[in-house]
Order: sequence, then C-alpha cells, then structure tokens
Amino acid sequence: MDVTSKNLVVEKAKTSRIEQIDFDHLPFGANFTDHMFVCDYKNGQWETPKIIPYQPLMMEPSASVFHYGQAVFEGMKAYKDDEGGIWLFRPDENFRRINRSGERLAMPAFPEEYFFEGLKKLLLLDQEWIKPGIGNSLYIRPFVIASQPAIIASPSQEFKFIIICSPAQSYYGGEVRVKIAEKFSRAADGGFGYTKAAGNYAGQFYPTNLAKEEGFQQVVWTDANTHEYIEEAGTMNIFIRLGDKLITCPTSDRILDGVTRKSVIALAEDRGIEVEVRPIKVVELLEGMKDGSLKEMFGSGTAAVINPILGFGYKGERYELPKVENSYAATIKKQLMDIQYNRAEDKFGWRYRVK
Amino acid sequence: MDVTSKNLVVEKAKTSRIEQIDFDHLPFGANFTDHMFVCDYKNGQWETPKIIPYQPLMMEPSASVFHYGQAVFEGMKAYKDDEGGIWLFRPDENFRRINRSGERLAMPAFPEEYFFEGLKKLLLLDQEWIKPGIGNSLYIRPFVIASQPAIIASPSQEFKFIIICSPAQSYYGGEVRVKIAEKFSRAADGGFGYTKAAGNYAGQFYPTNLAKEEGFQQVVWTDANTHEYIEEAGTMNIFIRLGDKLITCPTSDRILDGVTRKSVIALAEDRGIEVEVRPIKVVELLEGMKDGSLKEMFGSGTAAVINPILGFGYKGERYELPKVENSYAATIKKQLMDIQYNRAEDKFGWRYRVK
Ligand SMILES: Cc1ncc(COP(=O)(O)O)c(C=O)c1O
Ligand SMILES: Cc1ncc(COP(=O)(O)O)c(C=O)c1O
Repeated sequence: MDVTSKNLVVEKAKTSRIEQIDFDHLPFGANFTDHMFVCDYKNGQWETPKIIPYQPLMMEPSASVFHYGQAVFEGMKAYKDDEGGIWLFRPDENFRRINRSGERLAMPAFPEEYFFEGLKKLLLLDQEWIKPGIGNSLYIRPFVIASQPAIIASPSQEFKFIIICSPAQSYYGGEVRVKIAEKFSRAADGGFGYTKAAGNYAGQFYPTNLAKEEGFQQVVWTDANTHEYIEEAGTMNIFIRLGDKLITCPTSDRILDGVTRKSVIALAEDRGIEVEVRPIKVVELLEGMKDGSLKEMFGSGTAAVINPILGFGYKGERYELPKVENSYAATIKKQLMDIQYNRAEDKFGWRYRVK
Repeated sequence: MDVTSKNLVVEKAKTSRIEQIDFDHLPFGANFTDHMFVCDYKNGQWETPKIIPYQPLMMEPSASVFHYGQAVFEGMKAYKDDEGGIWLFRPDENFRRINRSGERLAMPAFPEEYFFEGLKKLLLLDQEWIKPGIGNSLYIRPFVIASQPAIIASPSQEFKFIIICSPAQSYYGGEVRVKIAEKFSRAADGGFGYTKAAGNYAGQFYPTNLAKEEGFQQVVWTDANTHEYIEEAGTMNIFIRLGDKLITCPTSDRILDGVTRKSVIALAEDRGIEVEVRPIKVVELLEGMKDGSLKEMFGSGTAAVINPILGFGYKGERYELPKVENSYAATIKKQLMDIQYNRAEDKFGWRYRVK
C-alpha cells in the first residue's frame, strides 16, 4: 500500500494479466485491466478513494442496486498517440454527466478532484493496456452503485463509485439497419431517459431482440406518446442528412445529451454544414426516401464514434438508404478520430492530456 | 451438505443469528434470516438450486446488473397462525409475475418447481423467524440479477435467482399524504412500468424526496403524457371511494398488476360493494372533495396491505380527506389479514400452506 496523496491510496497488482490478452481479437467489454478505482460513500461522505487490483466485489444480497436499480454509469475512452502520449476526449463532460445522472437518481455528487486524480493514476498504472493506432483504445467505465444492505424502497445511504477499464479495438458496428419503434418505448416525459441510469438499458433488450428476429441490429426509439418523432438508439444519438442539411433532435428529459453528438454538431458547423437541431418526424424519413432527399442516417456515441445506418424498418416496410459520395458520417468520423488520437489540430480544446 | 432432493442442495448455517434480533423493534428490510436460496443460470440453463447460509455475493465489477439494470424482484410474505401453521398468500401470483417481469427484461423464466420447493424448504429452515400475531410476518424477497461479467449493452447470458427473507412487523405506514405528480413520471407507454424491474424504482427517489420536502410521504404517479390520470404510488396501487363506489384504474403496461389490488377488488365485490375499474381523472378527486363524494383514498400493496391516504397535494393546493365511518379501507384490510393469518374462511382459495 502506498499512499499517493492524502486523497488516493494505491495498492498495486502483484502480477499483470496483460500477457493473457489477445489484443488483435478483443471482444467488447469482456477483458479488464489490472487495476480498478473504488471509492465508498458512507455516513454522508466519500471516503478515501483507492486503486486496487481488479477483483470481484463483495456485495450484500440486500444491496439496493440489486433491487431498485439505483445505479448510474459513464462510458469514455483513452487513446494513445504514436509518441506514447495518452489522451482523453472531453472527460469533463462525462464527469458532469455522471453527477447529473446521479442527482436524478438521488445519489450524492462525486468530487471532481477524486475523479480526475483517480482516473489519471489508474490510466498511468495500466498504460500498457492502451494500444496506439487508430481504432484501438481503452474503454473506461465509471459507475456508481447503491450498496446499502436494506431492501426498503428508498434512497440508499451507501454507494460505491468504481472505475474499470477494458481494452477495445476499433468497434466495427457492422452493417446497421434499425427498426423504428412503433409500440415499445425507452423513456417517459418526466422520467430519467436523459441520464445514464442502469434502469434505462435493460428495458431495451427485449424489444431489441424482437427487432433482431426481424433482421435489424438496433432499435431507434420514438417518443412514447405518439411514436411520431425519432429520438435516439440504445447507445447512440441519431443524425439524419436531408439534402445537405444535417439534422438531429434536441435533447430533452428523455434523450441522452451525448458527448459525441455535441462534438459532431460543432465539427459539422465548423465545416460550414448547416445543422438543424429540431424534432424529427418519422414521416420525414419516409418522404426523404421517396424524393431522394434522405441521403444519410447515422448514430453517434463513444463506443463506435459514428455508425452509419444503412436502412430502417417501419410499419412492416423496409427502406435502404442510397450509397452516398462525400458522406458526412465518414468525413466527420475521421476528423473526430484525428482529434481524439492527437493527429489533428484541437481547435475546440477537447483533448485532455493524461501523459 | 445434505441433498434434499435431486433438485435442491441444502447447506445449513452452523449457528443462528436469531438471538441478536429484537423482534419488537424491527426496521423494515434490514435484518435477514439465517439462510438464503440461490440458483445460477449458465450455459442456457438453471443449475441445481441451493440453500446456503445467508452471505455476501461475490460479483464481478462488470456484472451487467450494475451497469444495465437487468434485474427483477418480487415481494411476498409468510404468516404464522396461532397453531404454528405457516402460510403464504397467493404465491402463484408472485411466481408468475417474476417470470412476466423477467420476460420483458430478456431474462430466462425460472422453473416453478424450483421456486416452490426452494421457498418452502427455506421457510421451514427459518421458521423460527416467523412470529405469530396479526401484523408480524416474514417478508420474502425473490430477485433475479444479471451476473455475466461483460459491459456490453445486451442481454446477460448469466443470472442469479435468489430469495432472501426479512422478519417484518406490522408495517404502520404512518400518516400518508401524497403528492399527485404534475411533472415527473414513473413509466412510459410501451415501457416496462408493469414489471417489478429494478429500474422502475430508483427513478422515483428524487421526485419523492422533493415531495417529502413539501410535507408529503409519497407520490401518486399520473400518466406521463398528460398527467391527467392517476396511476399508482411507488409500491402501492391506488383506490378511491366516490360515494359508495370503489374505483381503481385498470392495469396497463405502465401499472403493476398488484396481488393486493386484485384481492381487494374480489373482496369488495364479494361484500356487495360496487367496484369500477376505469381510468381515474385527477379532476374527479378535486370535484369529489368539493361535493363531498370523495370519501376515501387508499393504497394496496404487500408491505402495508392497505394504507389509508389522509390527504393529497395538487398544483400547490392541499386537500384533506374527511374522516369516514365504516371505512372500506379498514373493513377490507381486516378481512384480508384474517385470511392471510388463517383466522377466517378462505373462500377464494388464496392461502397456501407451507406447514
Ligand atoms: C442512450 C444513449 N444515447 C446516446 C449515447 C451516446 O453518448 P456519448 O456520445 O456521450 O457516448 C449513449 C452512450 O454512450 C447512450 O447510452
Ligand atoms: C409499483 C408497485 N405498485 C403496486 C405494488 C403492490 O403490489 P402487490 O399488491 O402485489 O404487493 C407494488 C409492490 O408491491 C409495486 O412495486
């Protein structure tokens, strides 16, 4: 045990598991680095955070995360450039968002210094796990879970803030065709769809399984009231290109305010592309297919950066998007990744140097 | 280890913790009996279930329950009569409901024999924890959590089905005044509000905290689209009495199909009370307060059986219900508890003998 600062205790792993990892064939999110960050909340305060060898958690069966879903998470990535520099992309956004999610779920805010000091130390310890090269990254998963052992349906008084890291390869989303939701929904007005709360995700699995049986890979959710407006996919915000305009719906209490989404908007505007942030009707997609103005659809999110959508299904019909020259998706994805990997100018100050 | 049957392995606790429990001052859901039931799902099947000493779970930090809220639960009670007989109340309803919840969350169904054999054995082992006397009971918490160690947002391939039990005293709900939701909501059309999914609960904590600051104990949720119709409370279905009619709203994909609710309906009808199952507008409550026809409001749920609601708040106004003679709430609660505690005829065949 060596105490790095009064705010962080580090216990190093005796051996590394890195040799067991096949970095050329990485399943997403199944391998984890040698260390993890853990900080407990008890008696009204966050205790001294620790970095410890990656290990199972001992949880009481009555811990409220198991019963009431009081849990939030984030998803971010670390990138290594060709000089061995290590970078994060807009981590302040993720930090603020995990606390915003937590607030909606009656969880205590996590201190900014603990987060950044802990995260940087963790990345430095496990830096060998971050491979250089476009597409390679270390997926970082901060999460907070309610750990108080009491099955009463009220806010927990104890929590664990944890960060685990998983090496990731270029996340090739594959051919993505989406089903536009007609019956099921993801989030309610006045609910917590805008948070990365655990409870927003499991509810999507069953409708997504049904969509998969019909040959789609993902669901694009629509508003629960009318199913007339498209909202977002399971882990991606949605953009459409109508003519030369790029359009995405506004965020709301139902829709996650994606970091990639806002970066795409900024980069597109910076390139002189006209961006409209406004509700998108499903019928606009149908009309755009008919008159040829719907040129592109894509999802934006940390895992896949930008994932082109090749087609969609709606009310029993299937629609295939045309092949497009000078795709916005491809251009913006490249520019975004060049910034993330420290290969291009960082005009907006989005990069954050870890090392 | 003694193998009770080919379907259940029992490992008894070496000592009992029962002496440490003050049965006259039981906080709800904080003490647990000596044993727990655990059954793992792996490789596409439920393994041999086990009863083991109550103990912490070892969970991988990447277990999907922590990240995606793939978790469902049930709440039921065991009662002891004055001859030492042990009873459950309509346990088949809870069993079916946990599988219905699980289906919506893409979780495998749990086998009926495993459930009943395991539950009965568990209750017999820990029968000293069930105290006789109206109000005393053993609260039973079956729950299922996704345990696969992989942070990919898709259905887990591994689960744990667990039952833990907590001794409970007469759950005096206290003076309950409710806030009628005007802005926040609990469930979406096309969502999974009708399930006992973990993700339906944590989202209620923050709005409930706000209501508490205004002096209410609970929130009565309204429909997310218009907030014009009352739906249910956090862990109770809602009934109102207008004149001599008892009214409750229909279940839907947003509303839990409560076991207590359907029992209240049956008992009320059996007594000749006119019961209407139909949407309830918030304005009906306001009108009923004005013309004196709103005589009672109460919640129904396993924990408190029936909880009278003394008043409500809506759009900044507070309403106090009048005191009522021959309260439906009190009459039906007594009748229901007499059935549960084997003190009255069980005309509907709801009691289930454990011993
Ligand atoms: C529901 C949802 N929408 C959109 C996104 C994309 O957000 P970001 O770009 O911040 O990764 C995510 C997650 O990553 C998500 O979970
Ligand atoms: C949301 C909700 N509504 C209503 C109820 C009442 O259901 P039951 O009578 O089956 O206990 C519960 C739980 O117990 C619940 O969680």
